[in-house]
Order: sequence, then C-alpha cells, then structure tokens
Amino acid sequence: MTEIKVVTNILKTNDEFAAQNQQLLAEKGIFCINLMSAPGSGKTTILEKVIDRLKNSLKIAVIEGDIYTSKDAERIGAHGVPVVQINTEGACHLDANIIRKALDALDLSQIELLIIENVGNLVCPAEFLIGEDIKVMVLSTPEGSDKPLKYPLMFEKARAIVLNKVDLLGSTSFNKEEFYHDVRSLNPTTNIFETSCVTQHGIGELCDWLKNQTYTKIKKER
Amino acid sequence: MTEIKVVTNILKTNDEFAAQNQQLLAEKGIFCINLMSAPGSGKTTILEKVIDRLKNSLKIAVIEGDIYTSKDAERIGAHGVPVVQINTEGACHLDANIIRKALDALDLSQIELLIIENVGNLVCPAEFLIGEDIKVMVLSTPEGSDKPLKYPLMFEKARAIVLNKVDLLGSTSFNKEEFYHDVRSLNPTTNIFETSCVTQHGIGELCDWLKNQTYTKIKKER
Repeated sequence: MTEIKVVTNILKTNDEFAAQNQQLLAEKGIFCINLMSAPGSGKTTILEKVIDRLKNSLKIAVIEGDIYTSKDAERIGAHGVPVVQINTEGACHLDANIIRKALDALDLSQIELLIIENVGNLVCPAEFLIGEDIKVMVLSTPEGSDKPLKYPLMFEKARAIVLNKVDLLGSTSFNKEEFYHDVRSLNPTTNIFETSCVTQHGIGELCDWLKNQTYTKIKKER
Repeated sequence: MTEIKVVTNILKTNDEFAAQNQQLLAEKGIFCINLMSAPGSGKTTILEKVIDRLKNSLKIAVIEGDIYTSKDAERIGAHGVPVVQINTEGACHLDANIIRKALDALDLSQIELLIIENVGNLVCPAEFLIGEDIKVMVLSTPEGSDKPLKYPLMFEKARAIVLNKVDLLGSTSFNKEEFYHDVRSLNPTTNIFETSCVTQHGIGELCDWLKNQTYTKIKKER
C-alpha cells in the first residue's frame, strides 16, 4: 500500500507542475513541443534543420535533456537560438519540475516556439507530462518497423511521428507497410512525416507543419 | 523521507531476488548473460546468429523481455531453442522478480547458456541486477558515436560491447575513433566486438568469446 501511495503522489505532483508550466507558457504565448525518441534516431539533427529553416519566421528556443554532457546544447547553440541544457544525472526522462527550473533560465518574452528535446528513451518519457502542447516523436529506419507495437505508448500519444533516416531504407529491413499499418492502428489521426537529414527529404514539409501548429496556437498572422 | 525509503526498499529487494537467481543458476551450471541496448540496435538478430552458430556445442535458452508483443520470442523459437517471453506491460526494464518467474517456466537441467534479452532501453536496464553473470550491450552505428558519454552507465557495466551494423558505417556519421576513446575512458577492460548481421562480419569472433566465457563458467571441456 505504501509503495502505491508514493507512486501516485509522484505522478500527481508531476501533473500539477506540468499544468503550471503549461499555463505559464500559454500566458507568454509560447507553443511547446516535447520531442521524444530512442537514442540515436536523429532528434538533435532534425532540430538543427528545423531551427535553420524557421528561425527567421519564429522566435525559437530549445531545452536539451540529457543524462550527462552538454554535447547537444552546444550543437543547438551554434545555430543562434537560446538553449538550456538539463543533465538528469541518471534519470531516464524529463519531468515537469526540472522543466519548471529550466524555464526560469529562459527569457520567455522572447520565445514563440519552445522545443524540449527529451532524454533518448522510447519508453519512459511518454509517461511524464512536462507542460507541452503536443508530443512529437522520431523513429529512424534502422531501428526497425516492429517498434510501434513493441513500444506503443509513445506512438499512441504523439501528435506527429517523424520517420527519419529514410535515405537508409534500402540498407535496412524496414518495412514501410508494416510501419504505417501498425502506427495507424495505434493512432489513426497522427501526422506522419518521412525525413532524411542527409538528403533533406521531407524537412520542408515538417517545418511547414510545425510553423502552422505554432501560428495557430499563438494566433500569429501568416 | 518516505519516498527515499521506498525506493531503497525496492532496489534492495531486487538485489536480493537477483542474488537468489544467480545462486540458482550457479547450482544448475548455467552461464547467464543480460543482453541490453537501445531499441532497434539489433539484439534479437545478433541472438539469432549466435544461436545458429552455437546451438550444436552448447545448450542454449533465451528469455525475451518486451513491453508488449511476443514478436521476438517467435523469432528466437524458430531457431529451435527454448524461449520464454516476458511482457512487462509498460515497465521499461526487467527486474529480478520477473526473471525468477520466467526461470520457473524453463527446464534448467537442460541449459548451459541462458541469454536474457532485456527491454530496448539504453538507460534503465543497466540499473537492475537480474541474476546475470555478465552484462553484454549492443550499440549500432546509426545511433551515433556520441552515445557512450551521453549514456555512460550501461557502457561502464558491460563486460562486452558489440558495435553492430558496421556495414552502415559508410552511410552514417559514426566516428569510430571517438567511440573507442570514449568507451575506453569509461570501461578500460571491456571487450569490444564489431559486427554486421548483414555481412556476418565479426559474428564468429563474438561467438567464440561467448563460448569461451560459458565453458569457463560451467567448467566444460573444450
């Protein structure tokens, strides 16, 4: 009984902090994306491409979640947008409390689109609200087309799913038919984008969608 | 205070169950490997190759850990060795208690090498002992050479690290020099194998090592 009670409290507390974060971001007119995937699917590289294409039309900031190192924040910072690095020091996901602290380190009046890159993990990050408007997830073709059914929660919760590294489709056993079938069975209305950061395939389409989502939320004129 | 106490108890209980599993496996003369990696690095495919090469010289069994589905157990079962599928139904790692139950489902008198394929997750599985003799981990080249420093725990604890999908080295930005440097800084004595399940590169070397490790533990004549 004690164990169950504590777990409930932790999740309840997290949800309360997440609601506070969401309210703060709404007041400031900020659209917030929780970007999730397994390690190495290409989240940071996609983010670099998105920033380069959208930074002239949107005020973008990034929160980088990693267990250790500031490698990703250094990569993002080189693209000229504000970035905060969170090191969870062992924890396998971001939670709303740590995001609350990271928000204190940003000038929220200068942000329209805030992208939070979660810890690389296809499981745990999907369980914790952090204050986001939407979740976006990345799966890369070398990971395999069996992943949606094996790790369903993240696929169920994502408003958009980015199938990345499509330039490697010919070098892997990835089955696009299985992927689309299984994703649609879990999440019939999600938006699916196919991208390659090598060939730039699909990056423009993804950016257009992200821009439209942001403009709609912050009621910015197109 | 309550929260800390509960977490301590959970980990302590897990370690006690793990010690019981390890003792049981030792009594039965079984060498046990905890096989870990991020999702999609190729654990199951490597396992299929290892089984095909070693099943005539060693009695092998497999425990498959997945959040949902029995896809991996079906793949392993097709190779003619005993296999038990665990579905964690949401949990992001295997623990010693669930392994204890899985061991009940196997005829331990007919096993020399037991390979437990953990849930695909580069973080949490490394934190939980399950009764293994050694941990073996897989990193695939498309995941990137920055992963050891970003996810150090698993790299620190692995007795062997398999760098898989080396056939894709030319199609990715993987930096082998960075990989070897960072792995050696975290774990100077680990064994590193480079493999490709497409070209079969390195599979023989990995199998020889696994066979030697098993024979040494179970004191089998070579």
